[in-house]
Amino acid sequence: MANSDKRRQPKYQQIADALKEAIRTGEYAPGDRLPGENDLMATYEVARMTARQALGVLQSEGIAEARKGVGVFVRVFQPLRRQGIKRLSAGQWGSGRSIWSADIAERVLVVDQVDVVEAPAPARVAEVLGVDPARPVCVRSRRFVLDGKPVLLSSSYLPVDLVARSAITEEDTGPGGTYARLAELGHKPVHFREEIRSRMPSQDEADRLRLSAGTPVMLICRTAFAEDGRAVEVNEMTLDSASYVLEYDFDA
Amino acid sequence: MANSDKRRQPKYQQIADALKEAIRTGEYAPGDRLPGENDLMATYEVARMTARQALGVLQSEGIAEARKGVGVFVRVFQPLRRQGIKRLSAGQWGSGRSIWSADIAERVLVVDQVDVVEAPAPARVAEVLGVDPARPVCVRSRRFVLDGKPVLLSSSYLPVDLVARSAITEEDTGPGGTYARLAELGHKPVHFREEIRSRMPSQDEADRLRLSAGTPVMLICRTAFAEDGRAVEVNEMTLDSASYVLEYDFDA
Repeated sequence: MANSDKRRQPKYQQIADALKEAIRTGEYAPGDRLPGENDLMATYEVARMTARQALGVLQSEGIAEARKGVGVFVRVFQPLRRQGIKRLSAGQWGSGRSIWSADIAERVLVVDQVDVVEAPAPARVAEVLGVDPARPVCVRSRRFVLDGKPVLLSSSYLPVDLVARSAITEEDTGPGGTYARLAELGHKPVHFREEIRSRMPSQDEADRLRLSAGTPVMLICRTAFAEDGRAVEVNEMTLDSASYVLEYDFDA
Repeated sequence: MANSDKRRQPKYQQIADALKEAIRTGEYAPGDRLPGENDLMATYEVARMTARQALGVLQSEGIAEARKGVGVFVRVFQPLRRQGIKRLSAGQWGSGRSIWSADIAERVLVVDQVDVVEAPAPARVAEVLGVDPARPVCVRSRRFVLDGKPVLLSSSYLPVDLVARSAITEEDTGPGGTYARLAELGHKPVHFREEIRSRMPSQDEADRLRLSAGTPVMLICRTAFAEDGRAVEVNEMTLDSASYVLEYDFDA
């Protein structure tokens, strides 16, 4: 049964399945170079195009990635564990730690691009913040890099009347970051909503995150609410899906 | 500046950008048919391959989708809102409602495939459940369909010694589902962990969820813990990313 199914599959799919099985059993470990087109042509007696298609299947499924001029390698998935709830607890930012440090244990996540401007927010963000979409808000755009690889783009939007003349309008927001400053300004975040989607990246996102082919992005849109129910920040994040696991822990 | 940037882009990218802008401004609404290859060839005076590449950009970014023999359409994104925390509150399943109904308001999510067997769990699941990976567990596999379109594959794993001879081993678990039955058996889930990833689908997943090209899947692995800290269920879910927004609401 399984055999006759196999025979009905195109040859490149059969080769791709054999490679996947070899990865599953550990014959090829994460980071290993897979057989090249010439190897596959010889082993399976197929044309170059068939060998290329087989390797293409593994790349489009995100199991392997091509390095230009070197070969196709089994993808290494050592994700950042982003703990959505623990990381935003007041104990975390209340004590002056960055909310990001909860993710990374000994791994060093650094900001390599910061841009703080006043500009209009996207319409959907202006609506959540309850501000006039034609008026500027404070926009903090950052790129985060892990082990030299960009993993996260973040754009944080805050109402200008809330944050004017505070450290939130500067590149370095100081200990505890934006949320500690909002607390000092009397707008302490007490509730969060995170909405998660996934899609393929735009060319610009793929370039900025240096994504290999077949890698989607995860989008997190976080809204922070103050005690009076006002939305005080909207943060739109774009994550390299090959670099992240999102974790939410909660009681029934 | 912007203009000279434009001119440096390949022609297909310029056409793709123009189409994206027209979608953004509402000239083409969700569900609308985009200009075909012939239209683009005439409008932009380009070869068929260039027109095809331009439409390909929108499809690979998940903005548009091709329907065979009909054309390329602006994707309609009317996602299910899956509220991770509210939906798993005891008030939800404690009152006999399905945990899924919190998602869908008036939209009808139905199970069209159910399979309940005893089989070994994947090694990572067996480890979380604390069971011998060679011994079978109770596996409940379901496919969920919305408006005739499959949107979710779910495989739930439970230790056999916990659930033997209960309704959990039947196709219909009864009012309140698996969690209500676990509570009756003295293993009420009181804590949950959800881990979220995203990647491109395998061919089998793409087939079962009828995904169009350029659509990643989101993976949710949920572990349910009883009062004594024991993991009583692991549920591995595979979601059509074009059909879902995941929402987590929580206090600081």
